[in-house]
Amino acid sequence: MLLHTIYLIAIVAEAMSGAIMGMRRGMDLFGICMIGAVTALGGGSIRDVLLGHYPLGWIAHPEYLLFTIGAAVVTAVVARHLHHLRAVFLLVDGLGLVAFCVIGCDIARAQGMHPAIVVLAGLITGVFGGLLRDVLCNQIPLVLQRELYATVALFTGALYVGLLWLRLDPALAVLASIGAGLAFRLLAMRFHWQLPNFDTSRVRGFE
Amino acid sequence: MLLHTIYLIAIVAEAMSGAIMGMRRGMDLFGICMIGAVTALGGGSIRDVLLGHYPLGWIAHPEYLLFTIGAAVVTAVVARHLHHLRAVFLLVDGLGLVAFCVIGCDIARAQGMHPAIVVLAGLITGVFGGLLRDVLCNQIPLVLQRELYATVALFTGALYVGLLWLRLDPALAVLASIGAGLAFRLLAMRFHWQLPNFDTSRVRGFE
Amino acid sequence: MLLHTIYLIAIVAEAMSGAIMGMRRGMDLFGICMIGAVTALGGGSIRDVLLGHYPLGWIAHPEYLLFTIGAAVVTAVVARHLHHLRAVFLLVDGLGLVAFCVIGCDIARAQGMHPAIVVLAGLITGVFGGLLRDVLCNQIPLVLQRELYATVALFTGALYVGLLWLRLDPALAVLASIGAGLAFRLLAMRFHWQLPNFDTSRVRGFE
Repeated sequence: MLLHTIYLIAIVAEAMSGAIMGMRRGMDLFGICMIGAVTALGGGSIRDVLLGHYPLGWIAHPEYLLFTIGAAVVTAVVARHLHHLRAVFLLVDGLGLVAFCVIGCDIARAQGMHPAIVVLAGLITGVFGGLLRDVLCNQIPLVLQRELYATVALFTGALYVGLLWLRLDPALAVLASIGAGLAFRLLAMRFHWQLPNFDTSRVRGFE
Repeated sequence: MLLHTIYLIAIVAEAMSGAIMGMRRGMDLFGICMIGAVTALGGGSIRDVLLGHYPLGWIAHPEYLLFTIGAAVVTAVVARHLHHLRAVFLLVDGLGLVAFCVIGCDIARAQGMHPAIVVLAGLITGVFGGLLRDVLCNQIPLVLQRELYATVALFTGALYVGLLWLRLDPALAVLASIGAGLAFRLLAMRFHWQLPNFDTSRVRGFE
Repeated sequence: MLLHTIYLIAIVAEAMSGAIMGMRRGMDLFGICMIGAVTALGGGSIRDVLLGHYPLGWIAHPEYLLFTIGAAVVTAVVARHLHHLRAVFLLVDGLGLVAFCVIGCDIARAQGMHPAIVVLAGLITGVFGGLLRDVLCNQIPLVLQRELYATVALFTGALYVGLLWLRLDPALAVLASIGAGLAFRLLAMRFHWQLPNFDTSRVRGFE
């Protein structure tokens, strides 16, 4: 199935992004592998725990763990050559984000959740892996600060839920949502679209 | 029901406290909303996951998400005027703490938990939202360092469990616990009551 | 039972290590107790939540909470004398690591999990308590950076699973795994064995 293939590509891309950040923090090989696995599988795990959806994906399919750990080890070994692949990496990372999002929506839909929770399940699947990565690397999560990463996940999930509500063919809805979400992500990166920040100099005195 | 009204006030207050801290960390609008929602709903979510109490509150009632996100957006927009409301905010925050605590106790009681776990469920509901907020904002949780915040939650939960054990009317027990807990919290702030810290200069060489 | 006794020693040792780090961060008595309890019981709690294994250990046995909180309070009071006990502490901490690991494996085995998940459940039980401690203390988890701590957990779990697969008597398998794991840990500390780190100067420009 297409979505499953994209999922495997996505967890490899996310594991690589985790491994790279772990290397930058001076982690050892175990730390690099663990950050890789948590980045790739953490979003889906948090979604499943919040929804009470057992067993978790990587517990039912331990081979997913192997893929992410393998990707992290390979990243550690070949990192010096990876900067040639930066554009590929960002493309695959964006593909992973929107694929995670659609997959997360599907799981919540299969549990009969409210549409708002379905979209949120997609968002959590897409962005909470990177959020755990940043917490373990002791920095404020990029997704809370940066260009439109979470917004892309929200857009993708809402579009997917909307297309299904319009009774579009599910396979078409997947492809349309992934295509539109990925285009949005690439345009947001290309043109540095941002959400507003807020002036905080006025909130002194507040706890 | 009174407790439900107080709960809604409490999640709005907690969402505002999260949004303010997110703004101070230079987060964008998505980050501010997410910190708001996590601060307001995170304590109850952790409690429910630890107790195995499904579905989680905001999954059964997605409108709670809307309230917290709305409160975060409003906070971001009007933050420059909020410092006039500092006293109101601290009062509502204290009310939220003790209300969360009583609600958390009720959920554990309904599951037939041991009284110690009931009190702990109240504590977790009251303080873990703020703890998640601080972890996401990359600082040591205030609740582990500060004036009597967690102690108020412990006191409120223990009083509530004790009054119910004495077969007091449940509505009265709620009101008495919330009233006494809030009074304790306000007095602790007014007079800067603190738990002891410990001299750590002697523990060098450890671990 | 032997393993249960070792478990109690282990949670006391982990609670002490959490309390010491909390004291160093200037936490108050509540913070010290909470860090102690989270360090001691957090690894097993994360394992149980990921496996869907309810009720959690300390919810079924609230007395475990009492042991960890008691250990944290005693640590706070007597910390100035503890540096005399550093060698004992490291020995007990290592014993706790390998005991947690074997206990975690047993729980996943009882649920009929795949051997890879069994070993991972042991790893999570052994190291995630310390990982939560470090996140709450706002530092990059030591286990991701340091000498062979997680590797010892992986080795212990894999050895235990392997010995059981070879149909060794369970009590013997427990003793052999704990003995070999502890020896490995002590040798790793004594000779400063490390996993490779990776040169990160070449990964600039990434993400």
